[in-house]
Amino acid sequence: MEDVVIRPLEKVQLRNPILVEGLPGVGNVGKLAADYLRDQLPAKPLATIFSKFFPPQVYVNEDGIIRLVSNEISYWRSPKPDGRDLLVLGGDYQGISPEGQYEITERVLDFCAKLGVTEVYTLAGFAQGKVVESPRVLGAATSPARVEVMKRYGVVFSRNDPGGGLIGASGLFLGLGRMFQMEGVCLMGETSGYFVDPRSAEAVLKVLVHAIGIDLDFTALEAKAQEIDRIAHKVQEAEQRSSEGVPSGPSAPRDDLGYIG
Amino acid sequence: MEDVVIRPLEKVQLRNPILVEGLPGVGNVGKLAADYLRDQLPAKPLATIFSKFFPPQVYVNEDGIIRLVSNEISYWRSPKPDGRDLLVLGGDYQGISPEGQYEITERVLDFCAKLGVTEVYTLAGFAQGKVVESPRVLGAATSPARVEVMKRYGVVFSRNDPGGGLIGASGLFLGLGRMFQMEGVCLMGETSGYFVDPRSAEAVLKVLVHAIGIDLDFTALEAKAQEIDRIAHKVQEAEQRSSEGVPSGPSAPRDDLGYIG
Amino acid sequence: MEDVVIRPLEKVQLRNPILVEGLPGVGNVGKLAADYLRDQLPAKPLATIFSKFFPPQVYVNEDGIIRLVSNEISYWRSPKPDGRDLLVLGGDYQGISPEGQYEITERVLDFCAKLGVTEVYTLAGFAQGKVVESPRVLGAATSPARVEVMKRYGVVFSRNDPGGGLIGASGLFLGLGRMFQMEGVCLMGETSGYFVDPRSAEAVLKVLVHAIGIDLDFTALEAKAQEIDRIAHKVQEAEQRSSEGVPSGPSAPRDDLGYIG
Amino acid sequence: MEDVVIRPLEKVQLRNPILVEGLPGVGNVGKLAADYLRDQLPAKPLATIFSKFFPPQVYVNEDGIIRLVSNEISYWRSPKPDGRDLLVLGGDYQGISPEGQYEITERVLDFCAKLGVTEVYTLAGFAQGKVVESPRVLGAATSPARVEVMKRYGVVFSRNDPGGGLIGASGLFLGLGRMFQMEGVCLMGETSGYFVDPRSAEAVLKVLVHAIGIDLDFTALEAKAQEIDRIAHKVQEAEQRSSEGVPSGPSAPRDDLGYIG
Repeated sequence: MEDVVIRPLEKVQLRNPILVEGLPGVGNVGKLAADYLRDQLPAKPLATIFSKFFPPQVYVNEDGIIRLVSNEISYWRSPKPDGRDLLVLGGDYQGISPEGQYEITERVLDFCAKLGVTEVYTLAGFAQGKVVESPRVLGAATSPARVEVMKRYGVVFSRNDPGGGLIGASGLFLGLGRMFQMEGVCLMGETSGYFVDPRSAEAVLKVLVHAIGIDLDFTALEAKAQEIDRIAHKVQEAEQRSSEGVPSGPSAPRDDLGYIG
Repeated sequence: MEDVVIRPLEKVQLRNPILVEGLPGVGNVGKLAADYLRDQLPAKPLATIFSKFFPPQVYVNEDGIIRLVSNEISYWRSPKPDGRDLLVLGGDYQGISPEGQYEITERVLDFCAKLGVTEVYTLAGFAQGKVVESPRVLGAATSPARVEVMKRYGVVFSRNDPGGGLIGASGLFLGLGRMFQMEGVCLMGETSGYFVDPRSAEAVLKVLVHAIGIDLDFTALEAKAQEIDRIAHKVQEAEQRSSEGVPSGPSAPRDDLGYIG
Repeated sequence: MEDVVIRPLEKVQLRNPILVEGLPGVGNVGKLAADYLRDQLPAKPLATIFSKFFPPQVYVNEDGIIRLVSNEISYWRSPKPDGRDLLVLGGDYQGISPEGQYEITERVLDFCAKLGVTEVYTLAGFAQGKVVESPRVLGAATSPARVEVMKRYGVVFSRNDPGGGLIGASGLFLGLGRMFQMEGVCLMGETSGYFVDPRSAEAVLKVLVHAIGIDLDFTALEAKAQEIDRIAHKVQEAEQRSSEGVPSGPSAPRDDLGYIG
Repeated sequence: MEDVVIRPLEKVQLRNPILVEGLPGVGNVGKLAADYLRDQLPAKPLATIFSKFFPPQVYVNEDGIIRLVSNEISYWRSPKPDGRDLLVLGGDYQGISPEGQYEITERVLDFCAKLGVTEVYTLAGFAQGKVVESPRVLGAATSPARVEVMKRYGVVFSRNDPGGGLIGASGLFLGLGRMFQMEGVCLMGETSGYFVDPRSAEAVLKVLVHAIGIDLDFTALEAKAQEIDRIAHKVQEAEQRSSEGVPSGPSAPRDDLGYIG
């Protein structure tokens, strides 16, 4: 089979579209943000991406129906007369090998380039290894001009972070994007790295909608963020009691948090 | 060499054939079931599948004759005037890398599609991590209609199982099968996951034969199941004695069970 | 680059040649035997095999000259008017991935088939996990007729060994060889598996030369075997003293044995 | 995408150019030397090499601008009327799989062969596992004539080092280079292997410039070497105090040294 199979669901003409990428990763920040954006706009399914570089896995939904793991590209038409349309890339997995990462990214960029994409925003989490009360949004970009623009939206370009660079799809879409003459920005929400983080996703999305000039209702994401805040707070209390010699109730509550999405 | 080599042993015309897949996996349930089905029908060898995604290994039989590890497709002609023929896929291994899983599955599906297959049953085990007295058969399917039909045969579609989806050939044959316009069902026999489980294979097969309308003699499989039940019972007794401070005889009897097939 | 590069050093016409394979493996038995055969005949270099499935490594000889790791095919012309010529395959490594094993074996077989090879002998060690005083030669073959013939040369075809089949080049050359209409035999010398074993290589070679009807001087191999016997004996004594509470002199002498070839 | 993408930045005619390779490895000796050579000459960017055999990673510079990991070929024109030009290969990574090593090396050699390269110097570190006060430069070469020449420049060709051969790009450029009719030398600076070692890089470069007849200012490299010497000295003192029961101040200072480049 082909290494990467992109199955278009319909044929569209888009107006100067912007690609927004958000796949699973640190704190699931990128995926949470991209999925929320897609659902709220809402964006419409445009193409499904299968690949032998994803795990050989199907998901089963609650009705017992299977679905092969995939990535999906959705599109949204701006209602403004002179607006730019959006493409949103989300999915179940990033490529599970370095070669797979390159192959999938290159094929998706090629597909998007043919739809007229010249600009990419990639969304990700940045693990701080400690609880982050109000997450900053760190940035990286393909050009000094983009850096300057993003600073105006509150994005932090830090001399030291991310020190080791970006590993995975969010970096690669920018790095390989340059071969398709695309400019782009990576928006990284600070997160502890311990559990999925809608609070960080919200911070990232707020920068994004500002930068690309769209409106988005954040109510549902805010609710999810507050729910996680509540759980995280309980965990912290439990740990504090535990370190003070007080039994902490159910064991390993932190591990459970990873499944809340 | 080609990634996957399918060597046909003869050329056949089949009537609306159904593909049944059962390869090694949890409790070897799928393989036990597919091999038993093939032997009892009996199904006739149709094609041998070699691949560089299998281990570089030959088996040696008791006469000293070697055989390269492979998968095999067998066929069976229904004796009924309006019956549907069967293809049974079994073998020594699933592909040993994610890419290999995709490549082998895709090639086998392509081969079967050319023989007219539009319907697939995949057989597997579902590890419960504890002894299962009378295994239920859990299901997953490609469409709501199939789910409804399988419920009538006693298949359980659980909201929670399998939570993480299906990994490996049994899921992939359904997931990739949709690209070949095939509909399908995965039948998963509950099993402890600790040893090979003919009891679970029997449960799975009984649903299958009911669903596809064939007769099968279960005497030999039942005998095998009772043998394993006997051994498992002894192990449990030994463990109980052991935990009560009574010596348990030969060490590590459970490990030996893995070799009983 | 090509996955496997076979560089012929000269163009030859051979008379019904037999391929003898011996690559590094358990106790280095196969490699010791094949290299000794090549040196004693002596066989002449025919082709060098490079591959990206070997490690990215060069060896440096004592004069400081580098050599890329490779396999080599050598040839020997029988002096008898009606004799059969030989091809000997040896080298530094087997393919380091399952795919690599398949690719390299298939390419070498293809090369040999074009030279008229219809018969293969593969040489290997069979680890017994304990010291073996006089190693038996175990066998596996592609046909019952071959099994019968090899039994006459003292080869043991055991119902239980090798239980799990053969993994690696020695099995694969027979398994894939059948796709090239080649018949063959694997000769496995029993060995402890703890160090390189010229005694076992000698046992294997003695069967081989008998089976293919050539003469070979075993003096040098016997000398090497006696040297290893001497060292192994010392190690055993040292271990015995050690287990009796007597200091054993230099530490870990067994580990050093691995480097004696 | 192509396995290896070589993007030329300009088109050049070079006079009998020599290729100098220095990529990350033991003590980063090769990379330090090649980068210093490139910066001091200075050599001009000629081509950028991307590959799916590099990690899926971008670096972010202090201005927030991303750059996809790569290797680079730079060129330098000799000012002498009859001088030979140079190509310098450096970069972020070696290929991260054995196959990747072969593929990248083969493609770069092919590119260089077309520019007229017939001679290669590869620069590397040789780990001694202990502090090396004045590092010797060990050698390996493609021919006895080269060995003799390099001995005159003080290169040590040791019967025992490197015993296991050379693994990685520095060996492979020589080994595969022979398939492109290239001759070559590997220069290995002794180094502890514990931290990056400009002192060893300096030793290697001094041999190189002597051998290829160019002048180079070593002031900056010497300064860097002295800085590392100072830190290494402090670590040693700290360890000595520590082993004498004196607290050593900040913990694990040796680990930090790995980041000094």
